[in-house]
Amino acid sequence: HIELKRYFGIDELLDEGTAPAIWERANERLAAPDMDAWGILRKFNVSLVGTTDDPSDDLAHHKKLAAGGCPARIAPSFRPDAALGVADAPAWNKWVDALGTADGRDCSTLADFLEALDARLDYFVECGALTADHGLSRCPESIAGEADAAATFADARKGLDVGGDRADAFAGHVLAHLGERYAERDMVMQLHLGAFRNVNVGMMRGYGPNSGCDTVADYRQGPGLVRILGELSAREKLPKTILYNLNPADNYLLACMCGNFFEGGVPGKMQYGSGWWFLDQADGMRWQIDALSRLGLLSRFVGMLTDSRSFMSYSRHEYFRRILCNILGEDIEKGLIRRTSPASARW
Amino acid sequence: HIELKRYFGIDELLDEGTAPAIWERANERLAAPDMDAWGILRKFNVSLVGTTDDPSDDLAHHKKLAAGGCPARIAPSFRPDAALGVADAPAWNKWVDALGTADGRDCSTLADFLEALDARLDYFVECGALTADHGLSRCPESIAGEADAAATFADARKGLDVGGDRADAFAGHVLAHLGERYAERDMVMQLHLGAFRNVNVGMMRGYGPNSGCDTVADYRQGPGLVRILGELSAREKLPKTILYNLNPADNYLLACMCGNFFEGGVPGKMQYGSGWWFLDQADGMRWQIDALSRLGLLSRFVGMLTDSRSFMSYSRHEYFRRILCNILGEDIEKGLIRRTSPASARW
Amino acid sequence: HIELKRYFGIDELLDEGTAPAIWERANERLAAPDMDAWGILRKFNVSLVGTTDDPSDDLAHHKKLAAGGCPARIAPSFRPDAALGVADAPAWNKWVDALGTADGRDCSTLADFLEALDARLDYFVECGALTADHGLSRCPESIAGEADAAATFADARKGLDVGGDRADAFAGHVLAHLGERYAERDMVMQLHLGAFRNVNVGMMRGYGPNSGCDTVADYRQGPGLVRILGELSAREKLPKTILYNLNPADNYLLACMCGNFFEGGVPGKMQYGSGWWFLDQADGMRWQIDALSRLGLLSRFVGMLTDSRSFMSYSRHEYFRRILCNILGEDIEKGLIRRTSPASARW
Repeated sequence: HIELKRYFGIDELLDEGTAPAIWERANERLAAPDMDAWGILRKFNVSLVGTTDDPSDDLAHHKKLAAGGCPARIAPSFRPDAALGVADAPAWNKWVDALGTADGRDCSTLADFLEALDARLDYFVECGALTADHGLSRCPESIAGEADAAATFADARKGLDVGGDRADAFAGHVLAHLGERYAERDMVMQLHLGAFRNVNVGMMRGYGPNSGCDTVADYRQGPGLVRILGELSAREKLPKTILYNLNPADNYLLACMCGNFFEGGVPGKMQYGSGWWFLDQADGMRWQIDALSRLGLLSRFVGMLTDSRSFMSYSRHEYFRRILCNILGEDIEKGLIRRTSPASARW
Repeated sequence: HIELKRYFGIDELLDEGTAPAIWERANERLAAPDMDAWGILRKFNVSLVGTTDDPSDDLAHHKKLAAGGCPARIAPSFRPDAALGVADAPAWNKWVDALGTADGRDCSTLADFLEALDARLDYFVECGALTADHGLSRCPESIAGEADAAATFADARKGLDVGGDRADAFAGHVLAHLGERYAERDMVMQLHLGAFRNVNVGMMRGYGPNSGCDTVADYRQGPGLVRILGELSAREKLPKTILYNLNPADNYLLACMCGNFFEGGVPGKMQYGSGWWFLDQADGMRWQIDALSRLGLLSRFVGMLTDSRSFMSYSRHEYFRRILCNILGEDIEKGLIRRTSPASARW
Repeated sequence: HIELKRYFGIDELLDEGTAPAIWERANERLAAPDMDAWGILRKFNVSLVGTTDDPSDDLAHHKKLAAGGCPARIAPSFRPDAALGVADAPAWNKWVDALGTADGRDCSTLADFLEALDARLDYFVECGALTADHGLSRCPESIAGEADAAATFADARKGLDVGGDRADAFAGHVLAHLGERYAERDMVMQLHLGAFRNVNVGMMRGYGPNSGCDTVADYRQGPGLVRILGELSAREKLPKTILYNLNPADNYLLACMCGNFFEGGVPGKMQYGSGWWFLDQADGMRWQIDALSRLGLLSRFVGMLTDSRSFMSYSRHEYFRRILCNILGEDIEKGLIRRTSPASARW
């Protein structure tokens, strides 16, 4: 409803009867000159769009956009999921080759590999990147020491299957390394946790990865989060971090985890992220706001993220704001939080 | 309250003071000719009752009921839990013998065993079965190939302990086999997931299995569901399926899982089942309806199931309908869903 | 707000503007003679305070308090967490030595060790102890037989690392032993389940244990609870028990678990404890009350526990009572529970 209303000025509800006329009118409206991509960014007062990009991606378009007259800042986001995926040796090797090609250096050792990642990260920052984004079933539960990580790297480059535990520890080594680099560049590390990928084997066989249907998973999120965040805090290199979960059963785990890390004098350094994906709806948003309010400080919340990568998604911020305002308004009406200015406040 | 009211016309609340008089009146009422089993089926407009039956059970009573004047259709449900329970070799062997006796064939090989199951399934369908029902702590997380399953079968028939992993893979083999058979017969596969059984060891020793108190468990439900449903989708033999969970922490996992499988052109093929057992109450019902509404399509919901196997449980359908209607009514009053006919709808 | 109001008679809300004046007034108020510790106990009608004490602690202060004019009963609580912690051999050995010193006997065998624990337990009871309190990440999932437990004890006393599985089984042996002793003394066993400890490695290194930030964990609570409670029920030595969880995803697991054990004719023998720690707030309290109401019997509930060990926490009982009364009042207004006396009740 909000999308039809805000983008197209259409009040009718969409159903079998109204669909043909709505289709006509929406397409007419889309042909108007103020409804191109930049027009939409202007209309919704968008100040920043974050794309997600592979470390091996060319960011020439971002440079061009930064130079031109785009009404919003379009920032790349560093998404190195493939770097951690050593468990699938063939896909991982192909990706490491692509990284080497992008960076212009041969990734024959772990040191080369991490240097190439760092160089690409610098390139991302140069092109305006503010955040990194990791999509993980769960955080690695162990962190390989340098020698073990180098050995795993060498074996995997030879195409050997390194097994689950070594793959996990290698991923931990790379994630901890990257976390340090994010902290040094004052970047935000986003962790999106807890999906099963390609659940529908029939669909995946027919249409390939990312077509096999993803869904809410029930991995244990705690041990990996404790391991990775604890290690980065011990190294005094924990970056600003946003944690997102997909299974609402993990809400309190993640919301509470944020309160454990606070060093460095950055208020709101650790953020419990807004309802993500299947939780990006009225109940999911309320639960996230409530969990954050009970266990943290709502006034420090960085706010909502659509994660939808669609020009039609900006009205979701209005949807979120309505829910947030309803919660605050209802609490004020019940007398749970105050409506008046602090000076005259009486309980 | 609803049971006293609808079955016995009693408005008083039950407490220590009213109990003796209510006991008298209820027993008087039960003696009336319209309050026998068939009378109750008529009174509550029951059109279908599903019993749960072991594959080795004789269904002569079902045949007799189908022939006679019973006001409701009484359908057997195929419940082959024992077929999967190879981990307990003595109990399993006893059951396989009973299956062989019922089917009239010697179950000395895996092929014989599966043929006997299939034959019993055909017999169930002949006697009116529409559904199968599996009670599982969790779905098997692996599926043995035919040779491995046959070897496990042979070892277990000799009374050997086949161990946890082989038992799991054997159960996966049998469940996937049966899932195919259900699909071929257009039957519904119901999976009831997540109970700890016979928790109270003292009670179980004193009174035997099913007297040891069962309770909400915290098994990981995701991996097994992904394995079994994914395999059946890959074989293009996924039957219509209803998933029920016992621990509300799994609500989103199961509700979302249903959305991953949709092939075959059957709308609502995968169903997130209504609140079951400990969740068959006001909160549990609301949570199930809300999860389904947020992640799926409430209008495709097959509706409520009492699972109580009691003639006094039909009023629970009224209890469920009241909750469902309250949810819809409140959403309409808040303007979240529309009350008017589609043609005149305006937001 | 309630603390400022009830302890200090201050109506103003606390914020940057009001803080200096509130600080002054609160300190003035604290200087009044009725605001010492005993005065506060009197003011809030406190009848019982439970402290938590190590089995090796001297309880001389408790004896003195029992003899003197303290307005509340101050009861020690037996908290033998250290006795179960054999996984950390150095810390455990140090503690076993301290136990031996307190008890005056050399703990060179498992039998000595358990006798020393029993003797200290008797001393605690003599000093007024009514309850034991265990803080556990989760209950042990196995229970070592006597020979195995004795061997683990001997190895650990030599400073050997006994490994995770043996440590778990040893903890199970000690916990089951203690559970029996609690039952024999009609003491209440409290189990506080589900925290990650010292998550912030940097803080722990800087400030030591109990300074590293604790948080909501996602251990599987079911198997250990089933093992320990089942064993004690089989021995017919299950004490009165209160279960507390930290992760709200476990609410139904724990609330339902209480219903499985009921032998011995003690109504409300197994209690689902009130919202604890991060759950000791409005949502957490409501969820606990709702889970208990749906799965058990609210009228048997032992009520709220602050767990805060602070003289400023007594007003939290008012906070809890307001929430409980709101729930009951709202249910009465909706007609879900009755307001009138049983005799005249009509539905």
